[in-house]
Amino acid sequence: MNRNRLLELLASVERGTLRAEDACESLANLPFEDIGHARIDHHRVLRSGLPEVIYAAGKSPAQTAEIFTRMAAAGSDVLATRVDEPTVVAVLAAVPQATHHPQARAISFRQTKTTAQGHIAVICAGTSDLSVAEEAAVTAELFGTKVTRLYDVGVAGIHRLLAVREQLNDAHAVIVCAGMEGALPSVVGGLVGVPVIAVPTSVGYGVSFQGAAALLGMLNSCSPNVTVVNIDNGFGAAYTATLIARASDPQ
Amino acid sequence: MNRNRLLELLASVERGTLRAEDACESLANLPFEDIGHARIDHHRVLRSGLPEVIYAAGKSPAQTAEIFTRMAAAGSDVLATRVDEPTVVAVLAAVPQATHHPQARAISFRQTKTTAQGHIAVICAGTSDLSVAEEAAVTAELFGTKVTRLYDVGVAGIHRLLAVREQLNDAHAVIVCAGMEGALPSVVGGLVGVPVIAVPTSVGYGVSFQGAAALLGMLNSCSPNVTVVNIDNGFGAAYTATLIARASDPQ
Amino acid sequence: MNRNRLLELLASVERGTLRAEDACESLANLPFEDIGHARIDHHRVLRSGLPEVIYAAGKSPAQTAEIFTRMAAAGSDVLATRVDEPTVVAVLAAVPQATHHPQARAISFRQTKTTAQGHIAVICAGTSDLSVAEEAAVTAELFGTKVTRLYDVGVAGIHRLLAVREQLNDAHAVIVCAGMEGALPSVVGGLVGVPVIAVPTSVGYGVSFQGAAALLGMLNSCSPNVTVVNIDNGFGAAYTATLIARASDPQ
Amino acid sequence: MNRNRLLELLASVERGTLRAEDACESLANLPFEDIGHARIDHHRVLRSGLPEVIYAAGKSPAQTAEIFTRMAAAGSDVLATRVDEPTVVAVLAAVPQATHHPQARAISFRQTKTTAQGHIAVICAGTSDLSVAEEAAVTAELFGTKVTRLYDVGVAGIHRLLAVREQLNDAHAVIVCAGMEGALPSVVGGLVGVPVIAVPTSVGYGVSFQGAAALLGMLNSCSPNVTVVNIDNGFGAAYTATLIARASDPQ
Amino acid sequence: MNRNRLLELLASVERGTLRAEDACESLANLPFEDIGHARIDHHRVLRSGLPEVIYAAGKSPAQTAEIFTRMAAAGSDVLATRVDEPTVVAVLAAVPQATHHPQARAISFRQTKTTAQGHIAVICAGTSDLSVAEEAAVTAELFGTKVTRLYDVGVAGIHRLLAVREQLNDAHAVIVCAGMEGALPSVVGGLVGVPVIAVPTSVGYGVSFQGAAALLGMLNSCSPNVTVVNIDNGFGAAYTATLIARASDPQ
Amino acid sequence: MNRNRLLELLASVERGTLRAEDACESLANLPFEDIGHARIDHHRVLRSGLPEVIYAAGKSPAQTAEIFTRMAAAGSDVLATRVDEPTVVAVLAAVPQATHHPQARAISFRQTKTTAQGHIAVICAGTSDLSVAEEAAVTAELFGTKVTRLYDVGVAGIHRLLAVREQLNDAHAVIVCAGMEGALPSVVGGLVGVPVIAVPTSVGYGVSFQGAAALLGMLNSCSPNVTVVNIDNGFGAAYTATLIARASDPQ
Amino acid sequence: MNRNRLLELLASVERGTLRAEDACESLANLPFEDIGHARIDHHRVLRSGLPEVIYAAGKSPAQTAEIFTRMAAAGSDVLATRVDEPTVVAVLAAVPQATHHPQARAISFRQTKTTAQGHIAVICAGTSDLSVAEEAAVTAELFGTKVTRLYDVGVAGIHRLLAVREQLNDAHAVIVCAGMEGALPSVVGGLVGVPVIAVPTSVGYGVSFQGAAALLGMLNSCSPNVTVVNIDNGFGAAYTATLIARASDPQ
Amino acid sequence: MNRNRLLELLASVERGTLRAEDACESLANLPFEDIGHARIDHHRVLRSGLPEVIYAAGKSPAQTAEIFTRMAAAGSDVLATRVDEPTVVAVLAAVPQATHHPQARAISFRQTKTTAQGHIAVICAGTSDLSVAEEAAVTAELFGTKVTRLYDVGVAGIHRLLAVREQLNDAHAVIVCAGMEGALPSVVGGLVGVPVIAVPTSVGYGVSFQGAAALLGMLNSCSPNVTVVNIDNGFGAAYTATLIARASDPQ
Repeated sequence: MNRNRLLELLASVERGTLRAEDACESLANLPFEDIGHARIDHHRVLRSGLPEVIYAAGKSPAQTAEIFTRMAAAGSDVLATRVDEPTVVAVLAAVPQATHHPQARAISFRQTKTTAQGHIAVICAGTSDLSVAEEAAVTAELFGTKVTRLYDVGVAGIHRLLAVREQLNDAHAVIVCAGMEGALPSVVGGLVGVPVIAVPTSVGYGVSFQGAAALLGMLNSCSPNVTVVNIDNGFGAAYTATLIARASDPQ
Repeated sequence: MNRNRLLELLASVERGTLRAEDACESLANLPFEDIGHARIDHHRVLRSGLPEVIYAAGKSPAQTAEIFTRMAAAGSDVLATRVDEPTVVAVLAAVPQATHHPQARAISFRQTKTTAQGHIAVICAGTSDLSVAEEAAVTAELFGTKVTRLYDVGVAGIHRLLAVREQLNDAHAVIVCAGMEGALPSVVGGLVGVPVIAVPTSVGYGVSFQGAAALLGMLNSCSPNVTVVNIDNGFGAAYTATLIARASDPQ
Repeated sequence: MNRNRLLELLASVERGTLRAEDACESLANLPFEDIGHARIDHHRVLRSGLPEVIYAAGKSPAQTAEIFTRMAAAGSDVLATRVDEPTVVAVLAAVPQATHHPQARAISFRQTKTTAQGHIAVICAGTSDLSVAEEAAVTAELFGTKVTRLYDVGVAGIHRLLAVREQLNDAHAVIVCAGMEGALPSVVGGLVGVPVIAVPTSVGYGVSFQGAAALLGMLNSCSPNVTVVNIDNGFGAAYTATLIARASDPQ
Repeated sequence: MNRNRLLELLASVERGTLRAEDACESLANLPFEDIGHARIDHHRVLRSGLPEVIYAAGKSPAQTAEIFTRMAAAGSDVLATRVDEPTVVAVLAAVPQATHHPQARAISFRQTKTTAQGHIAVICAGTSDLSVAEEAAVTAELFGTKVTRLYDVGVAGIHRLLAVREQLNDAHAVIVCAGMEGALPSVVGGLVGVPVIAVPTSVGYGVSFQGAAALLGMLNSCSPNVTVVNIDNGFGAAYTATLIARASDPQ
Repeated sequence: MNRNRLLELLASVERGTLRAEDACESLANLPFEDIGHARIDHHRVLRSGLPEVIYAAGKSPAQTAEIFTRMAAAGSDVLATRVDEPTVVAVLAAVPQATHHPQARAISFRQTKTTAQGHIAVICAGTSDLSVAEEAAVTAELFGTKVTRLYDVGVAGIHRLLAVREQLNDAHAVIVCAGMEGALPSVVGGLVGVPVIAVPTSVGYGVSFQGAAALLGMLNSCSPNVTVVNIDNGFGAAYTATLIARASDPQ
Repeated sequence: MNRNRLLELLASVERGTLRAEDACESLANLPFEDIGHARIDHHRVLRSGLPEVIYAAGKSPAQTAEIFTRMAAAGSDVLATRVDEPTVVAVLAAVPQATHHPQARAISFRQTKTTAQGHIAVICAGTSDLSVAEEAAVTAELFGTKVTRLYDVGVAGIHRLLAVREQLNDAHAVIVCAGMEGALPSVVGGLVGVPVIAVPTSVGYGVSFQGAAALLGMLNSCSPNVTVVNIDNGFGAAYTATLIARASDPQ
Repeated sequence: MNRNRLLELLASVERGTLRAEDACESLANLPFEDIGHARIDHHRVLRSGLPEVIYAAGKSPAQTAEIFTRMAAAGSDVLATRVDEPTVVAVLAAVPQATHHPQARAISFRQTKTTAQGHIAVICAGTSDLSVAEEAAVTAELFGTKVTRLYDVGVAGIHRLLAVREQLNDAHAVIVCAGMEGALPSVVGGLVGVPVIAVPTSVGYGVSFQGAAALLGMLNSCSPNVTVVNIDNGFGAAYTATLIARASDPQ
Repeated sequence: MNRNRLLELLASVERGTLRAEDACESLANLPFEDIGHARIDHHRVLRSGLPEVIYAAGKSPAQTAEIFTRMAAAGSDVLATRVDEPTVVAVLAAVPQATHHPQARAISFRQTKTTAQGHIAVICAGTSDLSVAEEAAVTAELFGTKVTRLYDVGVAGIHRLLAVREQLNDAHAVIVCAGMEGALPSVVGGLVGVPVIAVPTSVGYGVSFQGAAALLGMLNSCSPNVTVVNIDNGFGAAYTATLIARASDPQ
């Protein structure tokens, strides 16, 4: 049932061709959620204005390319994450104007002209965390957020972090990607007054347990402004950071 | 919004005091789920005819007693599970006609007169699994299911199980409660042609890990008619077994 | 039956007070397992009428093809699950009339003419859970169960689930396949009055732990009509769902 | 080195009694961080304006009471969380005007007169999650945030959640507390366009593993606007939610 | 044996060509489990001659005392393990001639006069493992096995172990109880030529994980003559060690 | 220090060229263990008479072939386990008379003429456990033990196990290999009066956790004559079973 | 065999009453380890000069008091760790001159007059880690090591750590005790040029898993000068730190 | 701010063109850490004199070769660990004088002429642990430490360890690499009076859990002079062992 059908039903009541009791019965038994459908379905998208994103892992190159093309044709900004080499080839063949971000393992296509809104910082410790950090950065940029990258900052050389403190202070939210012991978000959380979103990365060996050790470290953080997302989930961190940055920088 | 309020709104349209467009708007923006509420809310209860059950763990004796009393006053059959000693005292003080099942750690109060429908067997290996098995049996009985208890049946003395095979064959569903290695459901599953619902119990020591070892054994069962519920969840097993038994014995 | 009772029975035959045929009948109905051997062995099959199924994982293509051929020659309906590409080639070469279900990773061969009995719904959230859902659906269909597939239904867009509620209400049992957080069975369990069989899938990354997170979510379900099978075990879910559906739709 | 000592050193240079080179050497080798100390130390507090909070678990009643008293005397708003009965007695004896929140296991003392800024919703499913939800709500209120409590909302009765959707839409951030399968944040995340902070609670039994199952479910959420904190960490969720709400409602 | 062979056998009896007694004998030796019932049930006991043992954990003092009394009255040797203080009082009140072994947390009552058969050594490292080692030793002694106790032998002072090597060489089987790192069985396994049964104990703290670390160490042993039982399962180790010792010392 | 050097030293004392005190000092300070070396080193081998076995996993084909050749040249019986295809080629090229056991992933070379001593049974449930069961069987046979293979015996079809009970009763020890739920050893343990050595296999999927679920099931066995070895460790099981069988069948 | 018996044997050879060959045989077969016994046994103690320490957990107050008294009577310095209240009473009653360290849960008795040798720093973040830090500090002090305590130093307020950097630089080894995320050792490891011994503490809640999360963080440390001991093992950390400090400060 | 900028600022004060108060303000607000940067950054390197080491895992061959070349050109000693075949080719092409250590999976280039300082022993049990042991040995040697390799020493043949006791006694620190049950460090710890650094290796199968079982064993060691590093972390062990050896052997 959509709005038109609902209007029609109510008009029948108005015209006297349908009794109130019968209309009531119909309404009670029809899938009213369908009205809600549109509202619910697009609720989040409509409020945040954030484009849909394609998670390419587990999709065939052809599937990803087809969805990407359809969304591009609809005039949306498009982002595909976790793209492997064959997927890159397939998508760029279909939408040659799209941009490949190798480090982020992502492909984006920007066609709307929105002004940047909000500002986040993305921090990571070493070269091994770069792909996750870049997934976050590229996602946030496609969403229209200004991103400051601070990428050579680890807890075992604490001065490097202190040296970028001023830059941290400008951000509306900070994303911290870290593997191994996952200690960086706690230290960053102590330096800034905004939400810190911690992303454990699957970097490490032995008892890093593919990021689980870093995850535990982050959930146990003694800094109260730290929240956490799944291992390697740079996209999710960028999504929430963008919501915060936009709310902090209304236009 | 309930049915009355909906009827009233539609009557206003019928009377011409509310325009179809305005009613449509109202309906679109009101929490229509409230109509659905009743239907959804009681959907399961209405279809299965199963009374509500009070999970007393984590509730104070007074809270449990109050809910029990209110439900009894409403004419329902009532069951409270996981009752400790103070709760038993409180409930029996409030509803003296209720029955305490010490082994099942449950209190029931039957006031409807339904004929038994369906038949299940509840199996367990030893005295330590008895409280879980009895929670299942008492729950199913309150739900109007006939229950055959087979309680001294373990895999290390397989003949005892074989000796009750005929009794197993009469049941529409079989609940098997087992701790330690959790091997019993696989063996039972091989003997019967009906669904087996396996309940791991927290019985054991060392690497029984409070029932987790039994749970893993059951999930790995090589008998395809075995499904599993949470550790010690006799109530849940009885709920599903009752649904199956009723469907198998329509009246 | 102990030695004395056996001796007594045999003595009756010796004395001519019991005929050999009657003694045979008595013995056949007593718990004599080796006599029962055949009966036990095929008990489940005989009662449920469900054909044998070949689990191809861990078997060579030649082994699977040989078993498949032998069973087909015996006139049975045949199903092989978890077939890889070489196995498909080998089986189809041997039994060309068989049907390959690529998404389900299964091959079936139907040669009996049974009427459909019972009706189940198979639900999953996304494209990644499809192979498990299809394994369940194809298995149930081979077993003669009517299957309604509801495949684009996730908890993060709850209206899509609500929109198919009526279809859910027609099923005698519902199979819900879900990876990641495994939340779908709880929501479905709240909407229907029949048993829900939850199948965790190995879909996800990071702390999905190859389906273990979904499994835990399902075992902790607050809906009492949910039972659970092993990760990716679409076959097992279909087996139990079929037993329930048949019992609910006697012919 | 504090400001006075620094000023003195610089004055010596100004007076000519210390050469620039020597001063440079001194500054390079002295613990300059001490200057930074004050700035860093209070950085977070100064920017967010959030008062200090006392985590009473692991402190003696006397210790908590003493810190509470000292902070109250300093004119700050004060909050103590995880207070047991003896701690409540000790704190109220010392600061009789303080307010005890039994369900939240917290004591607060508000003495500043700040206008409410920002608005959050706190959701939980059942009575068992109440203490965590209330810890979050009371914390946020002490921080000057408006809080809407939505407390009887579970995934197994989805209509109850849909019925409060409008109220959810008003919040700048949503805190969702859930034990057992931890499915609620995913569903809520699909309904709102703002950040959702998920708090797993240690409610449940068997394989709930004291909240770990709920935690895994939340980290695996398919809603991208969900971030997670440690089990039972209502305080931390309120801290970040308050930062977001304030940024969303500048004054 | 199938139906036809059974019919044939019974017909022979009917015809008088087979005597009832001979038919009974044949049937007794064929795999007829219910006849075998008694045989199976007591098979293990009959072959090994080992008395039944009462696992008192999870039984009430009254229950344990009753079983103990009944078995004692039947003339059996009796052993109750894991007895707490009230159980000791109850059992000794009922059977005053029984012996309490405080360190082993066991009560035994020996009334048969069997010669010692076989010889085992029980080794442990420190005072904390003593209760498990004593449970093993007391059990084996009740079973009629000679036991050499070697109790102050740890891997961090390897000479103490080497000093008792000769005593180890006399045993038919060696039980090694160890907590913490569980390294002792590997070293002992390298010194002896007989089976070593390793019993992890729940001694330790931190990452001993209540004996799980010791268990893992033992299962990973590089000595091929080491097998393992559950944590703290001194009884089980004694059972198998006794079977080996008896087989090695036939009388 | 070897025997020759010790003899030389003692001869010096005998000749009077070395004083007793000095010899004592030398002996006290020299690595006397070297004398012990031979004794300790070969202690186990000498007592059990079991030949050395080469664990080929983690060795290069060339390394394994070289060790195999050297041991064969020394006149020993030789066994290499966990051999992959290239290793088979390399070993057979070097020692063409050796026998390859494909299912057991082993190569053996028997050149001594010992009479068979002792008798064990090796049981497994299905084709997937065969390689582990065969590793056990081939190892025991090389060690001179008679082996009865019982390979199609699973708990979900319990009659198959009962049908081989007589054969089980002849064995001095029983090895049970099982994956998935690991229930078979408990059932077998209840049927026999000799030690049962349980070998969990890495067969299964989902929550079989590569054999860990089966391992837990076996450690929790309610049959007291069951001990356990590491996952897939057929060799270790055969080693201990052989020690028991030999002790039970002295010659 | 002790030194006297060895001397006697060699004297017999010297006297010609025992032939070299026979003596050789005797030596080869006697438990020569007994000679080594004394040397091995006290090796560690003799080299390090560190007194024995009593681990009181799992010992009765009487047992601990008795050992303490005996060691004190022997003139040794004595330390008992993990003492509970009754143990403190018992030990102080027996050795009134001993010193109770309540925070360290330890009792020490110093009666030798050794000069302090070496210098370590003990760092922890908060009041909750104090008992572990004090166990380390008190142990090291009894061992004659100078200890600098730096106790209010956490990663979420990094300046506090930087402010004590000079003090860190004086230590020969640094012990860092930390619970929750366990990040402190990595940061300290980056600041100093000496070994850092990390002690995870069982402080925290939820996913701190009683110190396991901190342990994982420390083992994953990106600072290469960090090694780790068991959770709460302040004693072990002090032992190794003392060995390092002594080696670094020879006298 | 670097030293030059600081000097300039102080010169302005000296010249009277900047007031002391203003300079103070500038210094307080500028990122003074940059001054500290150099000192902190190289602190550890400067004190220990240990060259930088390249962890090649996760770097491309080209990246590793470039860093290696740059460091070699700067005159440093260089070490790259965890090098695969392509990386070896790339590095040797760039720096032909470098030495490849195949067993250690490392490449080193020594160009300074430092005298050896300190002495460590590296112990492992079998050939499978060799690559980790060699990583430790090669690292320590590049750092200028004398290394004694003791590589065929396992707990199941304890005499081999006892035979090398004298060599152990000469070392200033001992590194023990062990997989499977990880028992070796405890035994070694009991034999020596110096720190033992335990390195669990990922050697084993089944419940070795890729080194986690060995790790747990080592952390539970009953020898107090044992500390532990991450699985397979030979480099880290060598780093700390070198620090200890240098401190023990000042020059």
